[in-house]
Amino acid sequence: MKGLPFLLSVLLSACAAAPRKDREVASLKTETPCQARAKLVLAIHGGVGYVASEAQARALADVLQGGHARLAQGARALDVVQWANEQMEDSGIFNAGKGGTRTNQGTVELDASIMDGRDLDAGAVASLKDVKNPIRLARMVKDRTPHVFMVGPGASAKAREFKLETVTPDYFTASAEKKSESSPGTVGAVALDRCGDLAAGTSTGGLFGKAPGRVGDSPVIGAGTYANNKTAAISATGEGEKFIRANVAGRISNILEYTRENLSFAVRESLNQVEAIKGSGGLISVDRQGEVVIATTQKEPMPSGFVREDGKLVLQDAALK
Amino acid sequence: MKGLPFLLSVLLSACAAAPRKDREVASLKTETPCQARAKLVLAIHGGVGYVASEAQARALADVLQGGHARLAQGARALDVVQWANEQMEDSGIFNAGKGGTRTNQGTVELDASIMDGRDLDAGAVASLKDVKNPIRLARMVKDRTPHVFMVGPGASAKAREFKLETVTPDYFTASAEKKSESSPGTVGAVALDRCGDLAAGTSTGGLFGKAPGRVGDSPVIGAGTYANNKTAAISATGEGEKFIRANVAGRISNILEYTRENLSFAVRESLNQVEAIKGSGGLISVDRQGEVVIATTQKEPMPSGFVREDGKLVLQDAALK
Repeated sequence: MKGLPFLLSVLLSACAAAPRKDREVASLKTETPCQARAKLVLAIHGGVGYVASEAQARALADVLQGGHARLAQGARALDVVQWANEQMEDSGIFNAGKGGTRTNQGTVELDASIMDGRDLDAGAVASLKDVKNPIRLARMVKDRTPHVFMVGPGASAKAREFKLETVTPDYFTASAEKKSESSPGTVGAVALDRCGDLAAGTSTGGLFGKAPGRVGDSPVIGAGTYANNKTAAISATGEGEKFIRANVAGRISNILEYTRENLSFAVRESLNQVEAIKGSGGLISVDRQGEVVIATTQKEPMPSGFVREDGKLVLQDAALK
Repeated sequence: MKGLPFLLSVLLSACAAAPRKDREVASLKTETPCQARAKLVLAIHGGVGYVASEAQARALADVLQGGHARLAQGARALDVVQWANEQMEDSGIFNAGKGGTRTNQGTVELDASIMDGRDLDAGAVASLKDVKNPIRLARMVKDRTPHVFMVGPGASAKAREFKLETVTPDYFTASAEKKSESSPGTVGAVALDRCGDLAAGTSTGGLFGKAPGRVGDSPVIGAGTYANNKTAAISATGEGEKFIRANVAGRISNILEYTRENLSFAVRESLNQVEAIKGSGGLISVDRQGEVVIATTQKEPMPSGFVREDGKLVLQDAALK
């Protein structure tokens, strides 16, 4: 085990709440609802290295509840992962979308990616300055272009072509001056739906004070995000450079595909590799059997949580009053 | 074997030539030369899906000869991989650097990455419009910034900060109109040096007629490029979207790290995954024991070659007259 703290439900502050009927469920654009009855799972994170504020904890709980309601009605994992990321992007209280942090030039540059475990199809975007919901553009890149990865003004041009909402710099809430005023926390989601399909998605503003043009692991398929119905769905957060170098999400999937090891082993092994190159961070993951592993490198708090079939929300580093 | 054609030396047009003394060897900037005596290997490719012209075959042979001379003198794998990519970027006859192909807007957008198997450190750049040698900037991002991946104008700004050569649009040789006039072929190199260290690097202009902002697998660490002294060094070329989704280079490394399978198996498995999602392409790879595997999906030619200790050049799909 090498001492990696596995911050699972039993160890943590948890709360239970019944899933509520949500007005937005009806308007969710989705494929044909799943008629199968696989047991649903949704896990989300709001970054690593801090403990959630009351507002952030509430936001995480709301996303888990809303996502549970959707999955329970047969919504697809891919749609729910996108929806969960959009909610956190729009909240303005995480380092993604509206709350995206500032570069050392005071600009905001957003990255995101999403992946469908059914066919390994994926969409990723990076260095966006004017797209309201990067995860939505990542989905569009996946669904409506022959490409997987688009960056910068070329990606923004696609957002306009697809009539996605764009924003001006004053939309963003983070301060350019003080790190403490910036919103901490990349966001991400992984899900297993009633059809037994997996999906993963991640969205971020990147490092506070990063150089313009810097891209971390969030939009790198195989680093910050991966999903494969044969293995697992993973969304990571932390020192993106180290997660790219360690091929974290891909490593987990590959270990599951080519060995008889389980998800806990694969996650530990990947985070050990991050630590071996002096990196830190964490990730959420769910495998095809519905096992959930949420883990970080040594001593890192990670506001996150998950919900299963029964609708009971399990939160960590995000206490609700 | 599933019918994947392994286009190895015995099957192919090959030529032998003694390594020649190269004037540039003396000026190679390198770390302390390797004093150890591991057996050297250098493999390079010039893309996939076409057979090399006489000029391209000559260029590949020259790079193998020059690279061999360097490695024989103790040059580091990382330096030789960078040098090899630079030569092919500057040649103007491959789809990288000077020969980079055009987007559907007539612009040139270049991508590259490089990775050091010793410590998994890496540098990657994408969507560059004015940097003469993207692989050199990738190396600078690795060596001189805290980042791994930089894109667009922010990456170009780093090139200026590091006093790398920049160019104007007329520098590039490829036509915007005719695909047949564009230079085919991403380039890449993998090496094992006398110290027993591995490195990999890849450079490309991307897809002909791509949308501006589109990024393929070449700059994605774990997709088009990966190197780990524990496993292997890999550089890929082909339908970048499929190589990203299949986590090709990372998959090979992970199979070697977590199973007892050999490099041939790992490469076949990864290319099978690419074919499973209807992709095509190929890759070059060398493992820590110096085994070389050069392979493609079904029926694709791939101008490439390798050289070992004895200096004999082995070329495929690149006949020298």
